[in-house]
Amino acid sequence: MDIIRPTLLLDKEVCLQNIARMAQKTKAKGLIFRPHFKTHQSAGIGNWFRDYGVTAITVSSVSMAQYFAQNGWDDITIAFPVNIYEVDAINALAKNIRLNLLIENLESVQMLTHKISQEVGVFIEIDTGHNRTGIAPNKFHGINAMLDVIKANQKFQFKGFLSHTGHTYQAQSKQDIYNRHFDALLKMRALKNYYLKDFPDLILSLGDTPSAALCENFNGIDELRPGNFVFFDLMQYKLGACNFNDIALRLVCPVISRHGSRSEVIIYGGAAHISKDSIINLDGKSLYGQVVINKNGKKTLLDERNYLYKLSQEHGVIRTTLQEFHNFAVGDLVEIIPAHSCLTANLMGEYLTTEGEWIPMMSKDFHRSASSPVPE
Amino acid sequence: MDIIRPTLLLDKEVCLQNIARMAQKTKAKGLIFRPHFKTHQSAGIGNWFRDYGVTAITVSSVSMAQYFAQNGWDDITIAFPVNIYEVDAINALAKNIRLNLLIENLESVQMLTHKISQEVGVFIEIDTGHNRTGIAPNKFHGINAMLDVIKANQKFQFKGFLSHTGHTYQAQSKQDIYNRHFDALLKMRALKNYYLKDFPDLILSLGDTPSAALCENFNGIDELRPGNFVFFDLMQYKLGACNFNDIALRLVCPVISRHGSRSEVIIYGGAAHISKDSIINLDGKSLYGQVVINKNGKKTLLDERNYLYKLSQEHGVIRTTLQEFHNFAVGDLVEIIPAHSCLTANLMGEYLTTEGEWIPMMSKDFHRSASSPVPE
Repeated sequence: MDIIRPTLLLDKEVCLQNIARMAQKTKAKGLIFRPHFKTHQSAGIGNWFRDYGVTAITVSSVSMAQYFAQNGWDDITIAFPVNIYEVDAINALAKNIRLNLLIENLESVQMLTHKISQEVGVFIEIDTGHNRTGIAPNKFHGINAMLDVIKANQKFQFKGFLSHTGHTYQAQSKQDIYNRHFDALLKMRALKNYYLKDFPDLILSLGDTPSAALCENFNGIDELRPGNFVFFDLMQYKLGACNFNDIALRLVCPVISRHGSRSEVIIYGGAAHISKDSIINLDGKSLYGQVVINKNGKKTLLDERNYLYKLSQEHGVIRTTLQEFHNFAVGDLVEIIPAHSCLTANLMGEYLTTEGEWIPMMSKDFHRSASSPVPE
Repeated sequence: MDIIRPTLLLDKEVCLQNIARMAQKTKAKGLIFRPHFKTHQSAGIGNWFRDYGVTAITVSSVSMAQYFAQNGWDDITIAFPVNIYEVDAINALAKNIRLNLLIENLESVQMLTHKISQEVGVFIEIDTGHNRTGIAPNKFHGINAMLDVIKANQKFQFKGFLSHTGHTYQAQSKQDIYNRHFDALLKMRALKNYYLKDFPDLILSLGDTPSAALCENFNGIDELRPGNFVFFDLMQYKLGACNFNDIALRLVCPVISRHGSRSEVIIYGGAAHISKDSIINLDGKSLYGQVVINKNGKKTLLDERNYLYKLSQEHGVIRTTLQEFHNFAVGDLVEIIPAHSCLTANLMGEYLTTEGEWIPMMSKDFHRSASSPVPE
């Protein structure tokens, strides 16, 4: 296990604990656990979920659905509004697996109804306040118009309402997360009560990691789709959605330079490895990662005055305090706890586990290399 | 040429013009043209440079050097401070090609001198004001200490001084770029004058795209290493380093949703495609890209009030004016001009040229797939 360049180190035990905890929580609450695999994008890590009874998954693109279908998953929700250009791949997939699609506007479902050739499940996406995609829960006219198209085509099976309460990521406190989650819960339950007489099997699906990790009240909800919890990160830690020791990912980087006049340490590890996603540090500046170093033979997390604060394509610049500066040497390996693990994983393309195993992710050139998008 | 998901479209003619212009400029000024290949990271695009007489290149990592060496390039400068952990790969490379390394601190060269087994060229990196890596040009004590180690080992051939005047990227005006470049030029020339008696063949190498594109005075400089100019982007356009029509890259994305109440259009194309690198828009907010749409059958660049302003992993949110909102429809393909083409290209992994050719980049799992790092 020789680390010689920026390497994404995955603590397998922590990761398995994260999976186990969420699996137990959803089971105890009688919820379908349909984890979002966009965070890890890896068939190998996906397999770890099977031991915890997971048989159904969520992905964020048709490409990811193809990749995981080829790796043995046969019940997949694409939790991203349907992109009509990919209907051929959707039909090919739906021929072989149980596939659920997401609809949030009339135009898409009207285009889709003419092109769909296989049975697919359909969720309507509800915007419970995140204001990204989804229809507002009080727009009955719009919801009914979509439902009319869905009902008129026997290929469509209406599954229910799905929401991503993503505005919990911008919460200022735990109470804020509880409030936003409860607000979403009430909106979704009102919809269920209203439509249950027409669709007695409809389900409600929620997804964000902060509320999935923190909240206890899921009354009326049928399914949870958290993704980030598999690794967690600094953003989740700051939100209170995890303990620091639950963060399973670290980017190990060689120190290549020190500049005492600026109290800066430069690592091999930049925007091409960590991504430019950041959280706001105590000093109001962007923090791309916190830093763990070896101090007197012991791994030590440095406080937020020592942080990754500037990135070029390959360079990362750590600002340090005067005291800590002297604990860095050229040739050291330091560990960066990323602000946002999803985008770091997406860039790195593979994991090295604490057991010394290399685990690949879905490749960026998946489409080029996949001779056939259809799992047989 | 069916575009069905986020696709990086490369205007080959514009790209060739950009290469031709820089090749002619450097030739006219008697400069060695050693383009930085970190922007495109592609053997295919690299080959286009050969028609313009390019035989020597710059890269930003040992991995990239391995990739381009395997693709026929035999004179490569790794313009990134040496990472001692990769010395085996460095030795393997230097056995087969002319390899130049970058040194900016004594510790690295002291470690390197014990491990190097092949002849390599060595540049000392000078910090002309970018304040990232490099030694200040007036730190003669530090420069001499490195030179002593370099001189003492016959494997090392001292090549000269290299600087990346990257603070031109933060310039507020063209005049600012001229000033920063001229300041760098004077600092580098002073070094050359001082050390020329000991090293009569030493060269001075400069690299940033803004000054390479804009400035005319390179007196005393021997080599230019610009990279971004091959594609340019919004950042370069705002700096005045290119015309808008010189930008060769666009990310084509399907429109998946429209929300009139917020004047927002959502595209399939997010942080996993474009990267979270941004410039500051007129309204003081982050601008991740500008937008080109089809309007009455004509490709039209929208003004900066219509811009890509929010990114999730797969979603991009375009804020529009009320008037332009009605020119977007679900199912349209729109073109995003990226803020920073290097990071967008790095994420996308392949190009589709305007001639309909797919051009791959160096893969993220290059190390896994490369059976041998040594080109034979």
